[in-house]
Amino acid sequence: MRGVVGIADVQAAAERLAGVAHRTPVLRSRTLDERCGASVAVKCENFQRVGAFKFRGAYNVLTSLSPAQLRRGVVAYSSGNHAQAVALAARLHSTSATIVMPADAPAVKVAATRQYGAELVFYERERSHREEIAQGVAEQRGATLVPPFDDPRIVAGAGTVTLELLDDAGPLDAIVVPVGGGGLLGGTAVAAHGRDPSIAIYGVEPWAGDDFAQSLRANRRVTIAVPATIADGLQTTSPSDLTFAIAREHGARIVTVSDGELCEAMRFAFERMKIVIEPSGAAALAALLRGRIDGLAGKRVGAVVSGGNIDPARYVELLGIEVEQLHRA
Amino acid sequence: MRGVVGIADVQAAAERLAGVAHRTPVLRSRTLDERCGASVAVKCENFQRVGAFKFRGAYNVLTSLSPAQLRRGVVAYSSGNHAQAVALAARLHSTSATIVMPADAPAVKVAATRQYGAELVFYERERSHREEIAQGVAEQRGATLVPPFDDPRIVAGAGTVTLELLDDAGPLDAIVVPVGGGGLLGGTAVAAHGRDPSIAIYGVEPWAGDDFAQSLRANRRVTIAVPATIADGLQTTSPSDLTFAIAREHGARIVTVSDGELCEAMRFAFERMKIVIEPSGAAALAALLRGRIDGLAGKRVGAVVSGGNIDPARYVELLGIEVEQLHRA
Repeated sequence: MRGVVGIADVQAAAERLAGVAHRTPVLRSRTLDERCGASVAVKCENFQRVGAFKFRGAYNVLTSLSPAQLRRGVVAYSSGNHAQAVALAARLHSTSATIVMPADAPAVKVAATRQYGAELVFYERERSHREEIAQGVAEQRGATLVPPFDDPRIVAGAGTVTLELLDDAGPLDAIVVPVGGGGLLGGTAVAAHGRDPSIAIYGVEPWAGDDFAQSLRANRRVTIAVPATIADGLQTTSPSDLTFAIAREHGARIVTVSDGELCEAMRFAFERMKIVIEPSGAAALAALLRGRIDGLAGKRVGAVVSGGNIDPARYVELLGIEVEQLHRA
Repeated sequence: MRGVVGIADVQAAAERLAGVAHRTPVLRSRTLDERCGASVAVKCENFQRVGAFKFRGAYNVLTSLSPAQLRRGVVAYSSGNHAQAVALAARLHSTSATIVMPADAPAVKVAATRQYGAELVFYERERSHREEIAQGVAEQRGATLVPPFDDPRIVAGAGTVTLELLDDAGPLDAIVVPVGGGGLLGGTAVAAHGRDPSIAIYGVEPWAGDDFAQSLRANRRVTIAVPATIADGLQTTSPSDLTFAIAREHGARIVTVSDGELCEAMRFAFERMKIVIEPSGAAALAALLRGRIDGLAGKRVGAVVSGGNIDPARYVELLGIEVEQLHRA
């Protein structure tokens, strides 16, 4: 797998995305810096189109398709953000998208995917294999499968986040990102090391779904059961060959956070940073706030907030806002 | 009053604030553009230090004080954001701040002001005149009063928002800002017209507190009763001589929005933009979403989100999130 994705691929993706993806801002919070003892640049991909970094990879894949492929449409399986990303990327390329989605996907993500014009096919998370369902749809229709992370074009698209982060925040000693299948982790590593090989790369997983951490420890891809975590975007069961190879090649390290720590980070973001983050998107921030990564004292750290799509009622529940008080006032 | 605040004052304030205030990002939302039929650049002062643009003016005043004045401390009256701003600006200048605050100020603003090290004095909004109380404290202690809006240094500090907005968003046809006492409106007008006299300036008031609109219609300062509105930062009862004069000189126009429209704008910001806005901070966005301003079709519009400080439970209530559902799931 060595060299399957390089900095040139990330730069090419950045050119395709220019003027299409939002150039999301980098925010700073003095309270966050004080809590971490580091200087933290927060890259806000919750402000990206479709509300998550996933748009970058999906759009990058669609730009690579031939006119004939585009005519037959695309298909994807996703718990949500990738679904919206593929749906929007398809619409922008004037083609159709079919999305295979778990029946328990957050309502806000289902509605948004429909709104972008995609056709939805639901499956039950515990009973069916989404890859197989999506593959079946692809074969029936001659459509192109857009995988959520296991694709060099997805990785390259995700890497564009880091090019912007480094351009806007200046030199960094470390970059911390959420890890599901490892597309963002891989893209981050390739982009960061293309600029400066000394940047330390950290991925953050929910501890209930630590397939990437287990895989790196075992030095082989480990598959776990579908993890029970509030981070619905990080419920992957194993790295892919591609993302695992990139993570190893670049010496990426993985730390884990609890669901409670994700909630704390979401509340911190709400109260102190005034930004809305979904559970998966809060993983890097949670690891920093909880001091899960050693050796960052006094360092320049980049943290990616990867998404902000969450049902309002679920958001209130996870932030632990005391709603009982509301009707007493 | 003509020429009391000029573009040079705003530029000087910008130099003093460089490296101290956050350079807040400009966000764009395609959904917002579609709703408005315009290209809208949203300047996010909810990400400013203390969570509101008020930091700029307060810090600008503090930098103008002599060492002897600084030794005797500062005093301010405020419903919240100006209080936090003066408290932080005082701390950064190693001096003390006394804040006169309504007894019903949001708890989150009270706590934040205390946290910045200020001494608090409470009064009842309907019974006492906060200006008199603050003036008394200032005379007793020899402290300098930092007014919330009626001061050329406050206006100049607020104007720095617009310099950044124009630098980052490019040329604009119109700028829309929330209006309380008119400090932000005045600063916006001076800064915008210093760059391009053709930019249309709009202020947005809660309709229950339309003292500025009434004053412009009557061609004299009109004083109203303390308005009942959820926009606690816009509960002013009249423009000041200074801000009224600037608004007239620059041809600023005022539109009004209802409290319900402020809530809608807050929810739009949460769901579609992933940012947290307080009611006062949502006024410009509310006017745009509701089409309150004619003639913006196809235009380039700047909108200032002025603050993001709100109690979490209050936020949930105002967004109309159906919290009853939470414990049924």
